[in-house]
Amino acid sequence: MSNLELKRRGLLCVVSGPSGSGKTTLCRRFSESDTAAVYAISATTRAPREGEVDGVDYYFLAREEFESRTTRGEFLEFAEVHGNLYGTLKSEVITHIEAGRDVLMDLDVQGAENIRNRDDRQIEEALVDIFILLPSDEELLRRLGGRGTETEEQTRLRLANAREEIRHWSRYRYTVVSRDKETDFQTFSSIIVGERCRSSRLTPREEGTADQPELGL
Amino acid sequence: MSNLELKRRGLLCVVSGPSGSGKTTLCRRFSESDTAAVYAISATTRAPREGEVDGVDYYFLAREEFESRTTRGEFLEFAEVHGNLYGTLKSEVITHIEAGRDVLMDLDVQGAENIRNRDDRQIEEALVDIFILLPSDEELLRRLGGRGTETEEQTRLRLANAREEIRHWSRYRYTVVSRDKETDFQTFSSIIVGERCRSSRLTPREEGTADQPELGL
Repeated sequence: MSNLELKRRGLLCVVSGPSGSGKTTLCRRFSESDTAAVYAISATTRAPREGEVDGVDYYFLAREEFESRTTRGEFLEFAEVHGNLYGTLKSEVITHIEAGRDVLMDLDVQGAENIRNRDDRQIEEALVDIFILLPSDEELLRRLGGRGTETEEQTRLRLANAREEIRHWSRYRYTVVSRDKETDFQTFSSIIVGERCRSSRLTPREEGTADQPELGL
Repeated sequence: MSNLELKRRGLLCVVSGPSGSGKTTLCRRFSESDTAAVYAISATTRAPREGEVDGVDYYFLAREEFESRTTRGEFLEFAEVHGNLYGTLKSEVITHIEAGRDVLMDLDVQGAENIRNRDDRQIEEALVDIFILLPSDEELLRRLGGRGTETEEQTRLRLANAREEIRHWSRYRYTVVSRDKETDFQTFSSIIVGERCRSSRLTPREEGTADQPELGL
């Protein structure tokens, strides 16, 4: 070969962490700053909160539609949480990773576990799971309370949920202990840039084949 | 727990690549810019080249001393290349990774293979192997010729060696296709920063235990 070009398969970055860990912001900010990355929007049957936009924050689906699409096998994973269905549509993921783009999504620990448990080689090879931890209970409480739009009861429930979620960090390939927004974003970006260099996802490209998008190698 | 602190074990970063790939510079520059990283100096029986300093570029050992130290089990790996012995002393590696520091070293493909083939769980867990590829034969030739201190014959030999080495890139966990010094350093640093977040090397630290160095988590 006179010219070594490597083609790479895309990543499926699944990011979990307690409320206030900044997981959604990390995914969105990275996908907005990097042309080879896209943010996967989840679907849900829960009602939109104030300010949430369909197709931006979530795909808000009627329960009937959600269920019929699960029956048609359109979901990569889905689960019922507190009486609402949440799920990831295959269409948000598969086409992108096959084209060498990286898909980022934030999922709760159950959603991440569902992804891990799929018996699907393509997903397994693409998967990069990251848990964002908060450095202390005090910091967790501070960030949980930070929204100012909920009752003490709701905060207590979220703290209990967060503590339950945190127990699962070691199931993830990567764990980031949150410090501040900038440091977290640098660390998060480094994980993705590093994973893009994994030899197992690289294959020599035959010369004279079709164009490929900029892959950020 | 009111305070979650994670302790991490150190990395053993083994970097290979053809002459001119910049592997040594990457290792040295990273270890100089990061307090949690150290550069492991190799030992060799070959004579110092002009400008090379004992204890900086290599430990230059007489063959007799090298051999008696291999007999005493002081080497993590060693090999004979073109009639000279090269090796990595355990003392350059083990203490550091146990203390949570990251050891960086550049090794040829044979040295890296020797490290991989050690039946040693500690080394296996710490190992992060990285191959630096050049984007084309033209670039390889340009960089091989760049030293200006050798004959055409020597350059031809180095080109043949380089081509042989390059065949092994997929044995490494990571492959970096070299672009320019700055981009390569950023990518290289990202790989290490990412590997520092691997959950498998993190353990919760018991409260009230002794101080640990800054681990760059």
